[in-house]
Amino acid sequence: MHILVLGAAGMVGRKLVDRLLADGHLGDRQITRITLHDVVAAAQPLDATIPVEIVTSDFADAASAAPLLAPRPQVIFHLAAIVSGEAEADFDKGYRINLDGTRHLLEAIRAVGDGYHPRLVFTSSIAVFGAPFPEKIGDEFLSTPLTSYGTQKAICELLIADYTRRGFLDGVGIRLPTICVRPGRPNKAASGFFSDIIREPLAGQEAVLPVSDDVMHWHASPRSAVGFLIHAGTMDTKAIGPRRNLSMPGLAATVGEQIAALERVTGKNVVARIRREPDPVIMGIVAGWPRNFSTDRARQLGFTTAEKTFDDIIRNHIDDELGGNFVA
Amino acid sequence: MHILVLGAAGMVGRKLVDRLLADGHLGDRQITRITLHDVVAAAQPLDATIPVEIVTSDFADAASAAPLLAPRPQVIFHLAAIVSGEAEADFDKGYRINLDGTRHLLEAIRAVGDGYHPRLVFTSSIAVFGAPFPEKIGDEFLSTPLTSYGTQKAICELLIADYTRRGFLDGVGIRLPTICVRPGRPNKAASGFFSDIIREPLAGQEAVLPVSDDVMHWHASPRSAVGFLIHAGTMDTKAIGPRRNLSMPGLAATVGEQIAALERVTGKNVVARIRREPDPVIMGIVAGWPRNFSTDRARQLGFTTAEKTFDDIIRNHIDDELGGNFVA
Ligand SMILES: NC(=O)c1ccc[n+]([C@@H]2O[C@H](COP(=O)([O-])OP(=O)(O)OC[C@H]3O[C@@H](n4cnc5c(N)ncnc54)[C@H](O)[C@@H]3O)[C@@H](O)[C@H]2O)c1
Ligand SMILES: NC(=O)c1ccc[n+]([C@@H]2O[C@H](COP(=O)([O-])OP(=O)(O)OC[C@H]3O[C@@H](n4cnc5c(N)ncnc54)[C@H](O)[C@@H]3O)[C@@H](O)[C@H]2O)c1
Repeated sequence: MHILVLGAAGMVGRKLVDRLLADGHLGDRQITRITLHDVVAAAQPLDATIPVEIVTSDFADAASAAPLLAPRPQVIFHLAAIVSGEAEADFDKGYRINLDGTRHLLEAIRAVGDGYHPRLVFTSSIAVFGAPFPEKIGDEFLSTPLTSYGTQKAICELLIADYTRRGFLDGVGIRLPTICVRPGRPNKAASGFFSDIIREPLAGQEAVLPVSDDVMHWHASPRSAVGFLIHAGTMDTKAIGPRRNLSMPGLAATVGEQIAALERVTGKNVVARIRREPDPVIMGIVAGWPRNFSTDRARQLGFTTAEKTFDDIIRNHIDDELGGNFVA
Repeated sequence: MHILVLGAAGMVGRKLVDRLLADGHLGDRQITRITLHDVVAAAQPLDATIPVEIVTSDFADAASAAPLLAPRPQVIFHLAAIVSGEAEADFDKGYRINLDGTRHLLEAIRAVGDGYHPRLVFTSSIAVFGAPFPEKIGDEFLSTPLTSYGTQKAICELLIADYTRRGFLDGVGIRLPTICVRPGRPNKAASGFFSDIIREPLAGQEAVLPVSDDVMHWHASPRSAVGFLIHAGTMDTKAIGPRRNLSMPGLAATVGEQIAALERVTGKNVVARIRREPDPVIMGIVAGWPRNFSTDRARQLGFTTAEKTFDDIIRNHIDDELGGNFVA
């Protein structure tokens, strides 16, 4: 089977590709070819035993999708997007990439015709929801995003459901929780601190915490995110019905609980590297974010997290990213 | 004040324009000019005391919106759309008109710049909801449309909320119930029978009822629809907050209740003109439609219907469309 990954050079994309190459199969089907697409060239995986093709183009160009579909990939993982902060700072760019890019892809799939009917897994986000919220956001709660990024994701969800209903493709949208611990360097995302306060202290670095300890948020590890993608790529979609977009399971934790977990797993020294520096702007943004979910549909459909507690999230990060070591 | 009506030649558009011309003002502001736009030429109103300009162009052409905005209309009523059945039969046409047309309009408003910030009233539909439903659809129920038309309306809702949040315009989306009694000839809409079974018997004609008497649906009169539009065009939108799209009040009635009301208002002879001819296809379509709503937000924000019972709907139709007479 041929798999196409869009946004393959990104954080989640790289981890998905590593997993696909390690597994060698998707569900019970042998992987025979993988195409990695991104606007920046994805790295050629070392020692891959499966043919891997790297394609570099701008997904938002209407002409980009057709050549990617020429070999008829059976499963398409669509992770290409610009993040919330960038889509808010550059209105046109956000709509062009996060909305029009996706629409070009859907149209290109439809244009193939001749019975081509790929599984399309789309990474949506909990940013499709906007405050005020119930204590837990359930599976029937409305989408009223408070960012352009969330709006673009919500629109793509609607399109994917309609293109699926019309028989043009077999789409599944998965609303990822905030991925924590995000590896790499601190970035400019307003949500960055949720990962920074774990990752940086583990590396012996100071991290800034801009909100109060009682801020609750919805997290899943990179390992869980990859698990969700694989499941969405292999599950029997007949069980889903027409509501093709699902809030993924996760873990609700306050910042205080994150820090307590870090102390349990690593000790007082590590935690002492977190510096509290309240930032009213970030506090304002975060106040509009989802805190907690009940994700019954996703769980019934077989989506599961790789962690039961925030301690697990930290341990998995130390194992997966730090070779089991941290700066004590 | 200058008002622009898109879709002005349509059923609701014509009634809105009649009301605006009769009132001479919108809220407490004098109307100084009205532009009527449609892809088919709107009729020049007789005896209008306000300058009325007729513009005919295809709203889905990217270039159509800019000239309409040149005189900076302060209030825009956007009613242009193709209906559910047509959007389902012609996928491309539905997306072109119902989605891209609206997006061109929003972009053209944003492109004006220089502080232009019109009120935009958008007619959405209860078709943004798809079964299964709770007994009453509340203000926080999710949008999972089961038609391309409903998908297009739901996407426009998201866009209007985002363009409003970003400060490009002042948008309000109103989800109209099914308008009943729809005047004119029977059309091909699957929902047509809800009006046909009232309108045709009143005119001495037979009407076909393709579903069973216990089918419940959500109705409002044309008079109510015009009232909603006027209120959305004049209300203080600060009270709405970021959730800019509202399910409008209406009246839940079963087909049996509709017929009983018709008999109360007109007698047995009229009702005898309804012929029951169950149609499994229409029954299947209608099974996926909303039945009943609780519309607390809209009511709190001042939206009210012009009728308390289905009897009122029938009486208003006889008064407004039939000069007080019917074929007994
Ligand atoms: N990381 C999270 O916490 C999180 C949470 C919810 C949803 N998501 C979604 O999951 C997906 C993957 O997230 P991530 O953290 O790996 O993001 P990322 O930013 O690391 O990766 C996204 C990739 O998309 C690529 N891309 C951007 N514009 C492109 C274009 N025009 N053409 C081709 N490629 C383009 C980027 O180059 C990047 O490699 C995204 O769709 C994101 O919106 C992520
Ligand atoms: N009537 C209902 O029961 C109902 C219910 C819910 C929502 N709505 C919505 O309310 C609005 C008005 O409904 P209506 O019953 O008056 O519909 P209608 O079909 O009578 O009127 C729509 C008008 O839009 C015009 N139009 C279509 N395509 C156009 C284009 N490309 N450029 C310019 N104009 C174009 C048509 O010519 C028509 O005059 C529509 O947006 C409809 O979707 C109606």
